[in-house]
Amino acid sequence: MRETDLLHHVRDTARRLLADRPDVIVGPGDDCAVVRTSGGVLLLKTDQIVEHRHVAAGTPLDMVARKAIARTVSDIAAMGGTPRYALVGAALPRHYPQADAQLLADALHRWGLHFGCPVVGGDVATLPRETDPFVLCVSIVGEPHPRGPVLRSGAKPGDTLCVTGAIGNSFRSGRHLMFEPRVAEAAWLASTLGDALGAMIDISDGVGLDAARIARASNITIEIDAPRLPLHTDAGPASKAIADGEDYELLFTLRPDCPIPDACPATGTPITPIGRCLPGEPGAWLLDLGTRTDVSSLGWDHR
Amino acid sequence: MRETDLLHHVRDTARRLLADRPDVIVGPGDDCAVVRTSGGVLLLKTDQIVEHRHVAAGTPLDMVARKAIARTVSDIAAMGGTPRYALVGAALPRHYPQADAQLLADALHRWGLHFGCPVVGGDVATLPRETDPFVLCVSIVGEPHPRGPVLRSGAKPGDTLCVTGAIGNSFRSGRHLMFEPRVAEAAWLASTLGDALGAMIDISDGVGLDAARIARASNITIEIDAPRLPLHTDAGPASKAIADGEDYELLFTLRPDCPIPDACPATGTPITPIGRCLPGEPGAWLLDLGTRTDVSSLGWDHR
Repeated sequence: MRETDLLHHVRDTARRLLADRPDVIVGPGDDCAVVRTSGGVLLLKTDQIVEHRHVAAGTPLDMVARKAIARTVSDIAAMGGTPRYALVGAALPRHYPQADAQLLADALHRWGLHFGCPVVGGDVATLPRETDPFVLCVSIVGEPHPRGPVLRSGAKPGDTLCVTGAIGNSFRSGRHLMFEPRVAEAAWLASTLGDALGAMIDISDGVGLDAARIARASNITIEIDAPRLPLHTDAGPASKAIADGEDYELLFTLRPDCPIPDACPATGTPITPIGRCLPGEPGAWLLDLGTRTDVSSLGWDHR
Repeated sequence: MRETDLLHHVRDTARRLLADRPDVIVGPGDDCAVVRTSGGVLLLKTDQIVEHRHVAAGTPLDMVARKAIARTVSDIAAMGGTPRYALVGAALPRHYPQADAQLLADALHRWGLHFGCPVVGGDVATLPRETDPFVLCVSIVGEPHPRGPVLRSGAKPGDTLCVTGAIGNSFRSGRHLMFEPRVAEAAWLASTLGDALGAMIDISDGVGLDAARIARASNITIEIDAPRLPLHTDAGPASKAIADGEDYELLFTLRPDCPIPDACPATGTPITPIGRCLPGEPGAWLLDLGTRTDVSSLGWDHR
């Protein structure tokens, strides 16, 4: 199974099945689902952590819990929303030590509260073998920004592509366990820029791959200038850093007449313009020393 | 790890951490969480299906998908609520056939729509080995009945204990793959009976164990009359049937002055009075041929 193929299949199936459901404002295929209940609009997101895959064996359980909550929160942030409540499904190996299970549960509750979405419910299941990897499935209910959810499909030719913070080498450096989901930054961008904020996504799989997702959803071409990419000092060259993923920074577009902020005032997180949106075939290209490389597939497929 | 011990630990932790969060109306420990958003009150529930554990290997994927959605819907029903939207996290073994993955995804979408909660988002992850069991985590957002959510804690001494449908032998007979979550029945009970509907739970783990959950939450004793239990013809004796679980029928209490309906008019599902609520030590007892047996632990721990 290729996860990307399955996700495309799911998106197409959902579009067909949900065509006559105007209450499903955004279905599968963006950072979150956007739905209407009798009380208002909600953002809904689910994401999983698999041992050995998203966290190495032996990762401290407090850090596992932090990452499980934070990466789902990051998807709520990618729409400019506010996380409100979390649910956790934990599938744990047979004979999992009671002390570890309690430590993990306590950490999930603590990080849920920390990130603004207390864990209000969950389920525990036991896997058949002691050697099975644990699976944590975190679902978060969020509320959209008053501006409305910031979708992947909102970019237009002429927009400037920007990124928060710095990118590259997140997994090997351990930063993937410690990142701050950009909830405050996203809300500030949505409040300050309003409709001048075009499209937004969080960088989970890689700058190239995630930029291409904006490009496809918005039906534009994206060019990224390698020298302008804000890289971590340990990240290596731009062409490698954009494929690393797990940065959980915001990648977003601004309308051409919009002044580009240097940083988010409340947090000091820097904002860097790194490229542009153009008319043309959907995809993401890296411009580096006069060469133009297709980076639409550069990144993890699909964690 | 004993799942029940962990769930108790989680409930106690959540109570402590959420003591100053009046927006979390009901946290871990009931059929669903009940939370307040800016737009109104929501029911939130997550539940998991583990291969080999909740479904046998080789179960048709359409039936796996049905059960995964239906058992979470059943928890929304247990509060008298209406399921609205579903999210699915699927962790699938390495080299899982693409055709099977698509069949499973299509079935989840179809059953979500069928049960009133379209799948609006999800995540796919790949497990490290081909022999790993798949894990499906279904989260559902529901809306409460205008009466308010029907909690486990609403029973009072003097209430009559009732059950919908028939019970026993659900897993071996295959009925655990085909049950109808009692959404319509629960909504009808809540509409018709209002505050005369005391407490409610769905029978997932066993009549004894689930009755004891009402008893503990409501601080009462429950007595069940064995001869009055509506058993499936293949269920064997009452003392065995109440430990089988996986019935997904509603177990609920009615105030003493409330006439007991024979059936739910819209669906024809029978309703049977099977026991009573009394003051006393929390627990569930089975009365059978003059013997009184503690059945508080009779059932699965904890699927």
